[in-house]
Amino acid sequence: MSKAIPKRSQDYSLWYNELVKRADLAENSAVRGCMVIKPYGFAIWEKMQAVLDGMFKETGHSNAYFPLFIPKSYLSKEADHVEGFAKECAVVTHYRLKNSEDNKGVVVDPEAKLEEELIVRPTSETVIWSTYKNWIQSYRDLPLLVNQWANVVRWEMRTRVFLRTAEFLWQEGHTAHTTQGEAIAETKQMLEVYANFAENYMAMPVVKGVKTESERFAGAVDTYCIEALMQDGKALQAGTSHFLGQNFAKAFDVKFAAQNGELEYVWGTSWGVSTRLMGALIMAHSDDQGLVLPPMLAPIQVVIVPIFKGEEQLKEIVDHVQPYIDELKKAGISVKLDDRDTLRPGFKFAEWELKGVPVRLAFGPRDLQNKTVEVARRDTSEKQVVDVDKVVEHIKALLEDIQQSIYKKALQFREENTRKAESYEEFKKLIEEGGFVLAHWDGTSETEDKIKNETKATIRCIPLNAEKEEGKCIYTGNPSSCRVLFAKAY
Amino acid sequence: MSKAIPKRSQDYSLWYNELVKRADLAENSAVRGCMVIKPYGFAIWEKMQAVLDGMFKETGHSNAYFPLFIPKSYLSKEADHVEGFAKECAVVTHYRLKNSEDNKGVVVDPEAKLEEELIVRPTSETVIWSTYKNWIQSYRDLPLLVNQWANVVRWEMRTRVFLRTAEFLWQEGHTAHTTQGEAIAETKQMLEVYANFAENYMAMPVVKGVKTESERFAGAVDTYCIEALMQDGKALQAGTSHFLGQNFAKAFDVKFAAQNGELEYVWGTSWGVSTRLMGALIMAHSDDQGLVLPPMLAPIQVVIVPIFKGEEQLKEIVDHVQPYIDELKKAGISVKLDDRDTLRPGFKFAEWELKGVPVRLAFGPRDLQNKTVEVARRDTSEKQVVDVDKVVEHIKALLEDIQQSIYKKALQFREENTRKAESYEEFKKLIEEGGFVLAHWDGTSETEDKIKNETKATIRCIPLNAEKEEGKCIYTGNPSSCRVLFAKAY
Repeated sequence: MSKAIPKRSQDYSLWYNELVKRADLAENSAVRGCMVIKPYGFAIWEKMQAVLDGMFKETGHSNAYFPLFIPKSYLSKEADHVEGFAKECAVVTHYRLKNSEDNKGVVVDPEAKLEEELIVRPTSETVIWSTYKNWIQSYRDLPLLVNQWANVVRWEMRTRVFLRTAEFLWQEGHTAHTTQGEAIAETKQMLEVYANFAENYMAMPVVKGVKTESERFAGAVDTYCIEALMQDGKALQAGTSHFLGQNFAKAFDVKFAAQNGELEYVWGTSWGVSTRLMGALIMAHSDDQGLVLPPMLAPIQVVIVPIFKGEEQLKEIVDHVQPYIDELKKAGISVKLDDRDTLRPGFKFAEWELKGVPVRLAFGPRDLQNKTVEVARRDTSEKQVVDVDKVVEHIKALLEDIQQSIYKKALQFREENTRKAESYEEFKKLIEEGGFVLAHWDGTSETEDKIKNETKATIRCIPLNAEKEEGKCIYTGNPSSCRVLFAKAY
Repeated sequence: MSKAIPKRSQDYSLWYNELVKRADLAENSAVRGCMVIKPYGFAIWEKMQAVLDGMFKETGHSNAYFPLFIPKSYLSKEADHVEGFAKECAVVTHYRLKNSEDNKGVVVDPEAKLEEELIVRPTSETVIWSTYKNWIQSYRDLPLLVNQWANVVRWEMRTRVFLRTAEFLWQEGHTAHTTQGEAIAETKQMLEVYANFAENYMAMPVVKGVKTESERFAGAVDTYCIEALMQDGKALQAGTSHFLGQNFAKAFDVKFAAQNGELEYVWGTSWGVSTRLMGALIMAHSDDQGLVLPPMLAPIQVVIVPIFKGEEQLKEIVDHVQPYIDELKKAGISVKLDDRDTLRPGFKFAEWELKGVPVRLAFGPRDLQNKTVEVARRDTSEKQVVDVDKVVEHIKALLEDIQQSIYKKALQFREENTRKAESYEEFKKLIEEGGFVLAHWDGTSETEDKIKNETKATIRCIPLNAEKEEGKCIYTGNPSSCRVLFAKAY
């Protein structure tokens, strides 16, 4: 708390790193690329989990748990899948350590070599479909709607807390269906669940779309995604939902007896969001004073800071506010009373601002006399003096207003930073300035690659709501029938 | 459902394995010793988690997340700890696969060898205390009360679903304190939390005690535990709470500035329960018909089976029961209506019996006329016809009664199977018969080892409530001041 965090305008990347650290969200661990999620950060993740888990159950899914380790040979069974993941897998080769001969610690025991090496799951399609083979015999066993909350490991070379880490936490849904149509409907349904969560809980507007072939999940027929725009003009993929066709069913020989008795391959989907959403949440709303959290996901929604001189006055204020704390809690609002007597109010204000608590109440001796309270909102820094008897109703309305306001602000930002490019020159200029750029593309991976190499911009998605519009590819001039969404991305 | 599960009296071990499989709780995976927890089994674990998590928060703990991987060198820092865990660690040595030269799959890429091998956490003391070093400077940072829900890996040679698996799910609390007294109080508090959970939610009576030196957690000063007795007369350690003294603080150099300004080592605790509790829950109450679940942890508390002929009658019954389903749900009771029209009622009865649903309602055409319903309780198989208008109140009381009854039954079983041995001959006989045996012991590891080698019985704990009683060690005849609890154990 000794000094302010860097400003976004000066060094966005440093601002993010410092904010994550100083707001007690997470930190790097001694193991390269693996993070420690600190209690305050984890409390936000727990709120996210609870909401998402409720949505999954609401749509008929159950949780289960599959092994951390996957036999190496499983990965080879789906050709695209192995291509996509083999290069970033952590591999377990031994199962025992022994004391070193110089007694300076432990070394791998060469005699305890595994017969078949195991990979630490980077995603669980292979181990899950090998299990589904035994669970699915008949159409009566379908649909199979399962989700798991788990840790996964992808040995990324460049890592960044929350955004790209070697180990991360996520959920992965894996479903199996009798028909293509049903599997596609599931894929789209889960995309809607993610979009609903992003917009109505994270207060983060997203573009729903489908990935191009080169950005598709390794092993999928189609990858749907939600894409958000961060304050530095870069895009962030916030969730994906994959239609797997019969690819994994064929790789693991998962067939069902249809009502007519015929054996058919099962249709599959998978979908996931991860602790990456924490990065998105931070970057979508926060400012130079610190975090700005949407009330729906804030571990502490209201903090109360007493302004006092001496122990007696503190006690008087604490006694005075207790009924309001009880009332707020009864209304389902999480409240924290910051009654630490070793810190000045100004210090506390800055700390709770840094931690993004949506509403701050300050109670001083004058408020006791006047039966008032000072209410400050984190997102706009506006302050207001409110009759203490009306404070609970006021806060309820205020939390809703903050939730809406930060969504609208983020939406306005995205709209102002979504532009159309009509030529490659214009495209390059807009991409350099940042934000989403809608442009015509000829539909080939070749053109996509060239644009990426020259500008670092990727096609984030082909928006689901894209209007049919005849045009010419900005790069090749070849015909195009709709605009796709480009941006530089995290 | 085609045939009954084996009887406990015939083959207890086979009964357990078949029950776990047939009740859809879990199964072995393709990876040796790693299990798949199926949706029904996981739903029970989720209930356990929710209750425990609430208890941890109630006692001031927050959740956080620490890395899956631990640098190999960390393990060496605490001498007893490395001794205890090195032999069962999964070791990650490489981080990439590549296609094999014969194109038959993937092999470990020898060029992608890690500079320092990583172990997959068998428990997280080392990685957490290395982190706490940066979190703790002053007494103001203490106590630090953190828990994590995670997967851990211990490469056990003989595994058994839930009871002993290479990978398992658990929670591990890790706390840091300014004084020895506070850390011991925390250790005991968490033991009480576990005992409360075991007795009041799992309906499983436990003996609270402290472990002997040879059964102590590797790196602890004292290990407290709760021990339960299974129906086959074997003991099961259901949870442990460790007072770590300053062992890990010294190993990782974690000091705090006390109020007087002096630098002192921090005092620590750790405590955990795991998916092993699932095994305990199954074995504590279940019978030859299948699972018996305590209502507090049953994913489905009430199942409704309509007795009908034809679609029309089914519809009539479903319409009739809907208001009662709504009312039960409103009362916080989880209800499932089994309206499958391809299965006979008898089949359904057996299935829900196998799955341990505490209360079953059967509604037939006559019940419609008479405004009645047949209520069957799983634990005693008693059936009763109840006025349908009183069914909700009846079920509320019945669920409470079942919860109490199965606890009492388990308690009675334990009391009948806890006996005192006055001589080694008697001890051997009682141990062979099964159950807890209270006997005098001279307090040496040597004697403990000999008894273990000769009888397979271990000292489960020195019970906290053990009365002072002068006596002679059953093995050596040396003096002893209290009886300790022996049993063969899982």
